[in-house]
Amino acid sequence: MAGNSFGKLFNVTTFGESHGEAIGGVIDGCLPNITLDLEAIQNEMNRRKPGQSSIVTQRKEPDTVRFLSGVFEGKTTGTPIGFIIENSNQKSKDYSHLKDTYRPSHADYVYDKKYGHRDYRGGGRSSARETACRVVAGAIAKQMLGSIEINAFTSSVGDIFIDKPYQDLDFSKIESNAVRCPDAVTADKMITRIKEIKKQGDTIGGTITCVLKNVPVGLGEPAFDKLHAELGKAMLSINAVKGFEYGSGFCGAKMKGSEHNDIFNPDGTTKTNLSGGIQGGISNGMDIYFRVAFKPVATIMQPQESIDAQGNTITLQGKGRHDPCVVPRAVPIVEAMAALVLADYFLLNKMYK
Amino acid sequence: MAGNSFGKLFNVTTFGESHGEAIGGVIDGCLPNITLDLEAIQNEMNRRKPGQSSIVTQRKEPDTVRFLSGVFEGKTTGTPIGFIIENSNQKSKDYSHLKDTYRPSHADYVYDKKYGHRDYRGGGRSSARETACRVVAGAIAKQMLGSIEINAFTSSVGDIFIDKPYQDLDFSKIESNAVRCPDAVTADKMITRIKEIKKQGDTIGGTITCVLKNVPVGLGEPAFDKLHAELGKAMLSINAVKGFEYGSGFCGAKMKGSEHNDIFNPDGTTKTNLSGGIQGGISNGMDIYFRVAFKPVATIMQPQESIDAQGNTITLQGKGRHDPCVVPRAVPIVEAMAALVLADYFLLNKMYK
Amino acid sequence: MAGNSFGKLFNVTTFGESHGEAIGGVIDGCLPNITLDLEAIQNEMNRRKPGQSSIVTQRKEPDTVRFLSGVFEGKTTGTPIGFIIENSNQKSKDYSHLKDTYRPSHADYVYDKKYGHRDYRGGGRSSARETACRVVAGAIAKQMLGSIEINAFTSSVGDIFIDKPYQDLDFSKIESNAVRCPDAVTADKMITRIKEIKKQGDTIGGTITCVLKNVPVGLGEPAFDKLHAELGKAMLSINAVKGFEYGSGFCGAKMKGSEHNDIFNPDGTTKTNLSGGIQGGISNGMDIYFRVAFKPVATIMQPQESIDAQGNTITLQGKGRHDPCVVPRAVPIVEAMAALVLADYFLLNKMYK
Amino acid sequence: MAGNSFGKLFNVTTFGESHGEAIGGVIDGCLPNITLDLEAIQNEMNRRKPGQSSIVTQRKEPDTVRFLSGVFEGKTTGTPIGFIIENSNQKSKDYSHLKDTYRPSHADYVYDKKYGHRDYRGGGRSSARETACRVVAGAIAKQMLGSIEINAFTSSVGDIFIDKPYQDLDFSKIESNAVRCPDAVTADKMITRIKEIKKQGDTIGGTITCVLKNVPVGLGEPAFDKLHAELGKAMLSINAVKGFEYGSGFCGAKMKGSEHNDIFNPDGTTKTNLSGGIQGGISNGMDIYFRVAFKPVATIMQPQESIDAQGNTITLQGKGRHDPCVVPRAVPIVEAMAALVLADYFLLNKMYK
Repeated sequence: MAGNSFGKLFNVTTFGESHGEAIGGVIDGCLPNITLDLEAIQNEMNRRKPGQSSIVTQRKEPDTVRFLSGVFEGKTTGTPIGFIIENSNQKSKDYSHLKDTYRPSHADYVYDKKYGHRDYRGGGRSSARETACRVVAGAIAKQMLGSIEINAFTSSVGDIFIDKPYQDLDFSKIESNAVRCPDAVTADKMITRIKEIKKQGDTIGGTITCVLKNVPVGLGEPAFDKLHAELGKAMLSINAVKGFEYGSGFCGAKMKGSEHNDIFNPDGTTKTNLSGGIQGGISNGMDIYFRVAFKPVATIMQPQESIDAQGNTITLQGKGRHDPCVVPRAVPIVEAMAALVLADYFLLNKMYK
Repeated sequence: MAGNSFGKLFNVTTFGESHGEAIGGVIDGCLPNITLDLEAIQNEMNRRKPGQSSIVTQRKEPDTVRFLSGVFEGKTTGTPIGFIIENSNQKSKDYSHLKDTYRPSHADYVYDKKYGHRDYRGGGRSSARETACRVVAGAIAKQMLGSIEINAFTSSVGDIFIDKPYQDLDFSKIESNAVRCPDAVTADKMITRIKEIKKQGDTIGGTITCVLKNVPVGLGEPAFDKLHAELGKAMLSINAVKGFEYGSGFCGAKMKGSEHNDIFNPDGTTKTNLSGGIQGGISNGMDIYFRVAFKPVATIMQPQESIDAQGNTITLQGKGRHDPCVVPRAVPIVEAMAALVLADYFLLNKMYK
Repeated sequence: MAGNSFGKLFNVTTFGESHGEAIGGVIDGCLPNITLDLEAIQNEMNRRKPGQSSIVTQRKEPDTVRFLSGVFEGKTTGTPIGFIIENSNQKSKDYSHLKDTYRPSHADYVYDKKYGHRDYRGGGRSSARETACRVVAGAIAKQMLGSIEINAFTSSVGDIFIDKPYQDLDFSKIESNAVRCPDAVTADKMITRIKEIKKQGDTIGGTITCVLKNVPVGLGEPAFDKLHAELGKAMLSINAVKGFEYGSGFCGAKMKGSEHNDIFNPDGTTKTNLSGGIQGGISNGMDIYFRVAFKPVATIMQPQESIDAQGNTITLQGKGRHDPCVVPRAVPIVEAMAALVLADYFLLNKMYK
Repeated sequence: MAGNSFGKLFNVTTFGESHGEAIGGVIDGCLPNITLDLEAIQNEMNRRKPGQSSIVTQRKEPDTVRFLSGVFEGKTTGTPIGFIIENSNQKSKDYSHLKDTYRPSHADYVYDKKYGHRDYRGGGRSSARETACRVVAGAIAKQMLGSIEINAFTSSVGDIFIDKPYQDLDFSKIESNAVRCPDAVTADKMITRIKEIKKQGDTIGGTITCVLKNVPVGLGEPAFDKLHAELGKAMLSINAVKGFEYGSGFCGAKMKGSEHNDIFNPDGTTKTNLSGGIQGGISNGMDIYFRVAFKPVATIMQPQESIDAQGNTITLQGKGRHDPCVVPRAVPIVEAMAALVLADYFLLNKMYK
């Protein structure tokens, strides 16, 4: 397969370009008899969509999901759930100047070299528009998973970061500000920073932290399909992600075993949780938490040198409406991918029941 | 599948417990007509094996690979390559005291909960002994890949790290010291640090950096199977790994787009390489480089509180011969997993030729 | 995966119920730069669609395919091709009487037992309407395959069969009659037979023979993924299929080795072709031919005893517009599935080039 | 993957050539806590092995299975089960005359064309020796499946066939004669026929019927992965198989719907079972039965014309010890493959529990 499917038992396949007629997908393997809350699904879409606040791109995409199959009388039937999202706002003219142009740190060049034929309208398949379909599938996965709680939030923007452990944060505050940071003081600083960057015609990176609560013991497979390996792949498959760490992460590499080991309580829980809720690739019932690094958006509103398909040096300047910082809109995408991994491993683990 | 296979076209399946009769694997999808250099394969095994220096575990395992199929008249035939490595030094008595014991930050507890039946001899399947099979497969992948260069090295131990970009290092020095660090001064400090830690009965973490040179343009699939996503999964599937970053990594999350974008040269190469050789999930011909974080080994030679299967509090003390720092022996494992990913994506990309 | 995907490299995923909003699919892995002949695709759809002649169901379904992605400037881009076919003629009222009813030899009972929630409108997912999506994908596969010729035809209806080897038939005559039998005399008999059966309110089975010409040497994998094994699976996955044989087939089981062996010509072709173009699971360049058995359609226009979900005995009588013989409309489906297998194995085999 | 793996959740990968050092495999996904009856496994091996009676090849292969992992204290652990069977009787000299020779209706020619490098010793990977590994895996699958009964038997040899429905046969008699036909009178005729054929230096084909009892309702997936489609693929992947039919099979293609439909009893069982225990691709709890056609063995003891790798015409004569009829030894292979399919679909179906 050419990489547009994810998951073994809970499997999602997506299609669509940023400026084609529509994007969409197929969810194969959702359990039957799940009463779908369509409003909750649309709400996840709204968290990802452009134009939701002053610090994100002002493009208008209603991103309304149309379900075509797999749901009957309000409940899933166990058959594949097909869905589409029309690209109502294609504006392909905006991009015609990019036909022969390779934008720096975009996928234009490699798509041309790999496929020999590129849909140059706004990034085509390589556009983050594709992630809208992941959010649909993730929203359904969340509903199938029931009591598992999945909360992601913006933990840093540039060099501004939350200086508290996640346990001290109130996740109910995540949606209370445009940057999706549950700490109000830090959120304000982040928003100010993003506005400055936007004014400069520049962009900035950041990190998202995600916490998974109530994950049952036993999810994950030994050897190659460790739970955190699949979570890592899921996160790294999101546009602009450059790094993934879970539990103690890169800090753990500086520690001693006597500091790092999580001592058991008599009930099998652990006193500390540097392991990050996973041991030997298998969930142990403690919170799973991980952090994802996003690079700054490549499209900037400043002139940049680049080349065209003939190797001529040209000067580019970003047009249109782009995000100065992708992180706030990526929060629901991180949650969606986490939900997809958990849904898949949840079903895989049922074979042992 | 229960997670013991890796790769779509170049596929390896492994089996075996640390103290069973043998470990082994099957490589399915290796190209035919590759003249196998068996000495080079054994050499990779020797880089991973215990007892090779004073800073690693003193266990003796000859780790001799026996090939059973898929090779005829010295060349691969295109049929599956089966191989085994006998566990000559099983010493299962060393572990009988662990039968009802859950060691902190090991997989004992979760295996018991998931499978209800655990091979308690030295970690069983969750032992890093499994990675010996990955090294065999990776060594064959390297030979199939020909001119692609794969070099990993120890870039930090605890808080001692190489303070130079990888371009300033001489990879031919990697094997010149026991810690596999190409910078001699840093290597000495690392070795000293590991010896101190060992004397304390403790362990310490570290990081490995890996550089892939001469990777052709075009490896990688869009959406879910981005090249770096699969590299990330591959690395995170190695025992004790807590994090993965490529290119600018977590540092990239602090940067601005105007700093981070890699400006093209007329020939399609880029002036900088913060992208890490991959754009939109597809290799662009520049060096691919990434960093992997390893936690400290969980087995320490100090008394630790723990529990048994009945939830009783007990005191554990590591016995036997364990690594104070797993990083030097993990260097060939990181290379092997990188080779497996590249071999798979190399074959996948041939469909476009 | 829950079984709605087919193919490893040329992969198609389908969705949709007979009376839902729409059916559709995603083709992932089609080569880029294929100039799509959309008329040819629609033509294949028209061969499958209801209402095309007096011997098939008179339902009206325009079956117009709408492509949503993966095609740009008339050519495939290598990204997934999403498509939908609206169910314009849903008429779900026709089926409301079936809500608690299990029709004999339909999938109603097993769907209820497996999923606990059934879309009872006209068979839902188990309806042969799903095969429309296979025809779309197969039509694209045919175009990608270029010079490979795929011809299927009706070789028997009930006990009326073509009494000639396929080499004596003119495939250009297949579309010249409503039953898709290239032998005019036999075709007339078949049509007469189907009309009689229809008048009786009954249905009848039949067989389809398919011939694949110009298949290159080397398609197929040893052991489990033999080319004919995958062709067999593909055919058996079509609704109403009860059997598959290739080459000498069941007749071969009565023969002696001295009769059955295909003696080579000096150029590697064979004097006879009882092997059916495949040896050891791999194509040898000779014609591949196989035969597929279809049972009679289960929905008949005569009263039948059955049960409802509570186990009460009831009397059923088919309503609506059904096929007296599914075979003529199944001819393009057989071709489509053959094309999907060949496309997949063609891409798989490119790894050896 | 290059086709040497079978199954999604209960997955087996095999390796090995007929005259290499050893053959073997890995079973990944067997449930833990199955107490393995090793004698029962070896007994299945003995049913397949050469030299067991006067009507099969007189080669001597002890075919002793050595388990290397995945079993501890007599029970499966849920980790991969690796096993090997040493090729004790390699006799590769017997085959050196075949180095440049293409035997008629063997895989020699296509392997050479596909891979460009062939292990010419006795068929190499294309030899039916590979099926020994399937029998090991199938024997374990049988034990995991518990109460499901799997019985295959020889139903025809040449034109001699059992003229009774399977319901009139006593499966306990299958092993009472060398040809594995439960009907004593027919068995005698078959044995006589095989001895005649052997005396002529010829070979003969035949069919095997297989009956699966106590299969729970609900195994099978809609669309492409119908239960009978996977059974068909499994059977067609066995060496020398040319056809597969289940339930009414090719006879069903001659029938009318009013004859063919299986009318329900109030408890959901059916009065007839022309469906063959599967409706819409999903088991309905009735007996599953199917028939498999085997061509005559290609190696005959008569002189045959053939070609060498340079296209020169040569005369071949089979040497060594070959089966005059492969069917009796294929009975346990058919059962093994059926067990593998059922084990896989049994685990897949647990996701709905």
